[in-house]
Amino acid sequence: MTHSPFMQQALDLARQALFISNPNPRVGCVLVSATGQVIGQGFTQQAGGPHAEVMALRDAAAQGHSTQGATAYVTLEPCSHTGRTGPCCHALIDAGIAQVVGAITDPNPQVAGQGFAKLRAAGVQVEVDTDAGLASRELNLGFFSRMVRGTPWVRMKAATSLDGSTALHNGRSQWITGPAARADGHAWRARACAILTGIGTVLQDNPRLNVREVATPRQPKLVVIDSHLDMPLDAHILKAPSGCTIYTSSHNPSRTQALQALGATVIALPNAHGKVDLAAMLRDLAARGTNELHVEAGFKLNGSLLREGLVDELLLYLAPQLLGTGGMGLANFGPLDELAQGVPLQWQDVSRIGNDLRIVARVAGRDQF
Amino acid sequence: MTHSPFMQQALDLARQALFISNPNPRVGCVLVSATGQVIGQGFTQQAGGPHAEVMALRDAAAQGHSTQGATAYVTLEPCSHTGRTGPCCHALIDAGIAQVVGAITDPNPQVAGQGFAKLRAAGVQVEVDTDAGLASRELNLGFFSRMVRGTPWVRMKAATSLDGSTALHNGRSQWITGPAARADGHAWRARACAILTGIGTVLQDNPRLNVREVATPRQPKLVVIDSHLDMPLDAHILKAPSGCTIYTSSHNPSRTQALQALGATVIALPNAHGKVDLAAMLRDLAARGTNELHVEAGFKLNGSLLREGLVDELLLYLAPQLLGTGGMGLANFGPLDELAQGVPLQWQDVSRIGNDLRIVARVAGRDQF
Repeated sequence: MTHSPFMQQALDLARQALFISNPNPRVGCVLVSATGQVIGQGFTQQAGGPHAEVMALRDAAAQGHSTQGATAYVTLEPCSHTGRTGPCCHALIDAGIAQVVGAITDPNPQVAGQGFAKLRAAGVQVEVDTDAGLASRELNLGFFSRMVRGTPWVRMKAATSLDGSTALHNGRSQWITGPAARADGHAWRARACAILTGIGTVLQDNPRLNVREVATPRQPKLVVIDSHLDMPLDAHILKAPSGCTIYTSSHNPSRTQALQALGATVIALPNAHGKVDLAAMLRDLAARGTNELHVEAGFKLNGSLLREGLVDELLLYLAPQLLGTGGMGLANFGPLDELAQGVPLQWQDVSRIGNDLRIVARVAGRDQF
Repeated sequence: MTHSPFMQQALDLARQALFISNPNPRVGCVLVSATGQVIGQGFTQQAGGPHAEVMALRDAAAQGHSTQGATAYVTLEPCSHTGRTGPCCHALIDAGIAQVVGAITDPNPQVAGQGFAKLRAAGVQVEVDTDAGLASRELNLGFFSRMVRGTPWVRMKAATSLDGSTALHNGRSQWITGPAARADGHAWRARACAILTGIGTVLQDNPRLNVREVATPRQPKLVVIDSHLDMPLDAHILKAPSGCTIYTSSHNPSRTQALQALGATVIALPNAHGKVDLAAMLRDLAARGTNELHVEAGFKLNGSLLREGLVDELLLYLAPQLLGTGGMGLANFGPLDELAQGVPLQWQDVSRIGNDLRIVARVAGRDQF
């Protein structure tokens, strides 16, 4: 990667929006004067707040810098539409920006090149840094997935022993991995728009599934697949301030009303087999603004998602331990008759996290969209 | 590690003996003149051939250098006894070496400090570089294990999918990992004194278990656990030029004679349960000069070795694939009731090998002897 230092700085700024800007993309902007001085910088704030370009313009103004004739390095095409905020390309034009170096075209069909076009039409010189574009797309893979595929980027998190057990035969699993891995797992939760689990996990562990181990200005939404609306009304997950959405395949008005009375959103999406239609659920979650969907589920739901080809990425913590046979595996699919029927992965990252090993691997080809 | 450059050079030389010197330790030697010039270097040759010190003295002589007053950097205490070769400390004394910097005391009870003592008695100054000693011991962990514990260093090799399957329910397993991992596995075979497998693997796969994918001047011995002497007389493993040793728990003179007629060594070591006494087998293998024992076995033997606490290290290749449920796991032990009953590991090394991930992990505490 050989971005200009200004574009690299803009990418570094964009990364600061990781826990913040959802469901908006993580974008950074650096303003550089004609004499080559950085005069303003910013990154996208919480949804409804200013985008990176506006933050950078405000920063320049606060420092008393003129932006006339300046160059804006921005990690995503400036928006051309009025959403919760006004269009950024107008703000740049109004500020007298002479040149925009953008990393990549915004895949949002409401933008999709129109931002660059509006800038050019206003006499602003536009360059696209395709190399930085790859890094920007990678940082915003969930946003790109939602815009291009109409589904979230689905990341399945699990923790197993080195020989593949998530839990013992008696269900014991707590603390297979250590505190550093747990905290790291919370950082991955924090960057997601929503966290998905199954009713089995709710009934067995009654998890909160919120972000506690790292500081974050927002909590992801919680999503539960609960075919028969077995959700206990006192489940922790129903108390999430970020809201809980329940997908079900059953029609049960009284149960639905009880859950709605507790603030839950209940959505019936049955498939032909009387289960929740998982593919339709992903489309619905995307329509509700879900970029990255973080899955922390059990054997059954993991298996269903993998069997239906709906998983994009695996986030796996391997504990330095062998637990032998008789425990629970990662996911309920198989038995397979051919190795070629397995789920092929591509290593993305392997890191030591405390005393555990963290593996990020993508389902082969899933990031090609 | 802050060895002197000469000691580092001696350690590098020692590593060149990795596939060569078994069952002798991997030792390197560098001779340095009083003016600080390297005048000779060498490493231990094949068993019965010259040790590192003699190789270095010969190297100096071949280059016409005098060794009078020189310093010898050697990664293991020079031997003081006459084995297949004469004692190295005499050779150093005869060559007029003024100082010996040794990395670590030889754990061989026939040496065990006597080499250093003899050198000192002859007026040679002796220093011990304990920091280099750690590296030398690590390189020779099998030799130290045999000398100190009376058992080999037991390294269990396996290849699994990322979710822990070694094979599908129908036994299909070939090529779970790729060619680079296979070649790497052969390099680990090449450094071992012996390779252990079970009769189940012989009957199912009829493997050769020799070193083919890397160049080596010697082949490890092959060892099979075959409780009932079910070994087919045409098994590849019986044709190994390095010899095949069969441990059995049964008494079957005619079968034993047939196997002996094919060159195999048959050793009966039954335990009280009518199985092969694995701990006794390890002691016997050590007595027969086995430093590192490389295990390539199946589910059952892996499980027995782990259950009996006989495994020191795991060499695991993880393929970028999920194979789900219904396949074979790494080892037949369990089911466990508590996480604490698992086998605790310590990560040693994690590397990408081709498209696979190689994990070297030690059973916690097993290298403390």
